[in-house]
Amino acid sequence: MNLSLQAFSKVTGLAFMVIGLSMLPSLLVACIYHELHAILAFVITIMITTVTGWALMFVGRDFEDDLKIRDGFLVVTLCWLVAGFAGALPFAMSGAIPNFFDAFFESCSGFSTTGCTILTDIEALPKSLLFWRSFTHWIGGMGILIFAIALMPSLGISGQNAAASEAPGPTLDKVTAKMSDTAKSLYFIYILFTVVQTILLLLGGMSLFDALVHTFGTVGTGGFSSSNDGIAHFGSVYIEVVIIVFMILCGTNFNLFFLSFKQKYNYFIHDSEFKMYAGIILVFSILIALNLYFSGVFESGDSIRYAVFNVSSVITTTGYATTDFNLWPTFSKMLLLMLMFVGGCASSTGGGIKVIRILMLLKLIRRGIATRLHPNAVVNIRINETTIPSDTITNTACHAFIYLMIIFISTVLISLNNFDLVTNFTAVITCVGNIGPGFELVGPMGNFSMFSGAAKFLLSMLMLAGRLELFTLFIIFTPKFWHPDR
Amino acid sequence: MNLSLQAFSKVTGLAFMVIGLSMLPSLLVACIYHELHAILAFVITIMITTVTGWALMFVGRDFEDDLKIRDGFLVVTLCWLVAGFAGALPFAMSGAIPNFFDAFFESCSGFSTTGCTILTDIEALPKSLLFWRSFTHWIGGMGILIFAIALMPSLGISGQNAAASEAPGPTLDKVTAKMSDTAKSLYFIYILFTVVQTILLLLGGMSLFDALVHTFGTVGTGGFSSSNDGIAHFGSVYIEVVIIVFMILCGTNFNLFFLSFKQKYNYFIHDSEFKMYAGIILVFSILIALNLYFSGVFESGDSIRYAVFNVSSVITTTGYATTDFNLWPTFSKMLLLMLMFVGGCASSTGGGIKVIRILMLLKLIRRGIATRLHPNAVVNIRINETTIPSDTITNTACHAFIYLMIIFISTVLISLNNFDLVTNFTAVITCVGNIGPGFELVGPMGNFSMFSGAAKFLLSMLMLAGRLELFTLFIIFTPKFWHPDR
Repeated sequence: MNLSLQAFSKVTGLAFMVIGLSMLPSLLVACIYHELHAILAFVITIMITTVTGWALMFVGRDFEDDLKIRDGFLVVTLCWLVAGFAGALPFAMSGAIPNFFDAFFESCSGFSTTGCTILTDIEALPKSLLFWRSFTHWIGGMGILIFAIALMPSLGISGQNAAASEAPGPTLDKVTAKMSDTAKSLYFIYILFTVVQTILLLLGGMSLFDALVHTFGTVGTGGFSSSNDGIAHFGSVYIEVVIIVFMILCGTNFNLFFLSFKQKYNYFIHDSEFKMYAGIILVFSILIALNLYFSGVFESGDSIRYAVFNVSSVITTTGYATTDFNLWPTFSKMLLLMLMFVGGCASSTGGGIKVIRILMLLKLIRRGIATRLHPNAVVNIRINETTIPSDTITNTACHAFIYLMIIFISTVLISLNNFDLVTNFTAVITCVGNIGPGFELVGPMGNFSMFSGAAKFLLSMLMLAGRLELFTLFIIFTPKFWHPDR
Repeated sequence: MNLSLQAFSKVTGLAFMVIGLSMLPSLLVACIYHELHAILAFVITIMITTVTGWALMFVGRDFEDDLKIRDGFLVVTLCWLVAGFAGALPFAMSGAIPNFFDAFFESCSGFSTTGCTILTDIEALPKSLLFWRSFTHWIGGMGILIFAIALMPSLGISGQNAAASEAPGPTLDKVTAKMSDTAKSLYFIYILFTVVQTILLLLGGMSLFDALVHTFGTVGTGGFSSSNDGIAHFGSVYIEVVIIVFMILCGTNFNLFFLSFKQKYNYFIHDSEFKMYAGIILVFSILIALNLYFSGVFESGDSIRYAVFNVSSVITTTGYATTDFNLWPTFSKMLLLMLMFVGGCASSTGGGIKVIRILMLLKLIRRGIATRLHPNAVVNIRINETTIPSDTITNTACHAFIYLMIIFISTVLISLNNFDLVTNFTAVITCVGNIGPGFELVGPMGNFSMFSGAAKFLLSMLMLAGRLELFTLFIIFTPKFWHPDR
């Protein structure tokens, strides 16, 4: 392994430092609510992480070179593992979640903006730990924006990289020109959304604490709540509408906001991915509302209300629920299951396979049929009036197969716990897609507490793998990664 | 539509004629067992089909040209629809299966060598109709061999076509040289397997009737039985071993037998697809046997016996069951579910995605990881020491996506019947993969009788689509097919 230990030290040291410092607001909350165990846990954790971080950064202080690609994969993965590990310490040390596998699961679920929980009684947790849990969503959302926009290209992954393969079209040339400026602009949008949503939720009658928790859960497309019943707890159409709007906004490609604002031009109506995303939300909401109404599950108004909320929640991979969709008719459940695979847009905080990839795969299928009919025809795949290079198509297909393969193999492993097929299958999908609830035992009213430690650890890894677009975590398990010369 | 009506008439006429004449053995069985309703039904059906067939062939008697590709797709699809329709007539007219949707389902299930049934009591059926039901498997198996080897190239689909894209390597050049000779050789092997298995089953104490029914079900990788309990009815290890051997043989690429025999050379040990196929059977049998043993489901001997039989049955898409694997631990069920996707080898009578395609997709994934690590490296995908053209890889990826898309969309549609997710999902997989049993309501001890007429029709279409490698049936639903100039 030819990774410079200095680079390794410097970057993971920085990660420890950032995670440690990001616990300060939670420590403040602990002080406000006089939660002594939590105060102690946060103080110790902040000391451990910042000292470790400082030491690691000191060791790597002379490192200035660019990272090699291979090293980049490892460092990015390590940073997220550091976050998962350090984030778990307050839960474990305060005694709120004594089992470390559980605490690690909860922390990974937070940072990866998944929103699955092993807690059976959320409200029993001290307020400061509930705040920390949701704050990891918010930090995680920021991390994803770095990862998608700023870090991946600096790792040298095919120039415009992730963004390039995921957000083709007019956005690209302009975005990549000044990458760090772009990152700043995206953070500005992210923080703007956070402030506006918090204010809107306060106006809806939420306490500041609840408003912050649910805003963090929404803008990070995470899904942790402060109440056992989730959003249903508030029973307010106004609050649901606010959350629907911000879930959909945060599942959208952030570059579209940035460009449309900067260039005073509506990029949304010309972006194929956004049009498909909006179309899916509309069509699936209508289909599910009709199914709920005609199955007699809800009255007409409630059918629309519940359909729109839960469709938006699942496709954006937020995972808030206003009702136990586990009890819905199978047709509606199957549609939700399809949405779990789709996920949000590229360069959003949403997870899943991503709308742009689904769009490319559909065009690949269409081309496949066309070439069967006209074997000699050359048909290019075009998105936003730009021809997509065949490499990108192949990579996209490859990504989808790895996604499915990971789901299959993980489900097989998880099923050693011998729960039913649907529980296992949707538990894996919901973790790797960073969604939150699945069906059956892991439905909106269920949780992940019944899985064994090994299964919880695997699911935690899946959340991180999903968040890192699979390749990054997956690649370090290949022999070629460690022995490139073979 | 520029299809020559003459070509259309000639080929579908031939199909009617062949199906009609293939009912003669069943008529003989009806006479032997004095089944009057069945005799009448067969006589009328044979008259209808042969007269229709003769008339259509007369209309198209002057047609001698080669078919265009587009016409080929339509004609092949029509031939299978004719088979499904004509094959249903004896069931419906004899009153044994009065509902035509049910009879059509049973007939499609037979010809496509799927083996799903809507019958709740198989043994209540007259012997001659049981014989016909199983005989459709045998005819279907022949049809698949024509389709894979002889017909597809004559339709001009990229020269060596299906076989080319599915069976790369040393087999190809030699097989395609004399296509019709090859077809004859494959039929010889098919008939040889039929004769040998029948004799071996007779030696195991089966009646001639049962031996024929189960041989047809095995060599066609179909799965219809003459008893409600399937193979479990006989309770004989000898019979199970015979069936295991012939299921595995008939899930193997028939070209390997032909070439190995003709050239006195063991092609099996050099064929990547066969090695993978054998490896999967071995590994999955061991894993399931261990799981069954350690879960306390069976004793050690029985664990191996049931594991090997049901793994072989599912991967070859035969679908015979010796036990209700629906009641197995989830780990074993998940492994069986994975096998349902894999299916048999190319140019066998098995269904599913096919081992060679899975192999290609795994190599595609490996290449995807390699190119992430070394962005400038060019890595070819090689199977049997031959480089696979990138077109073939793209087509294979495309095929897999269409396969999955059809499964998803069909499951959504089927779920309007509001059975549970696992029933719907595995019902669709088992039909499109031409397997037989799924899980839950459609498990080995269940059947498809509870679905609505529309759902049964959709499932019937899926069986044919799966059998025609999806593209053929799917392609005629595209606007481009009917309006090529647009």
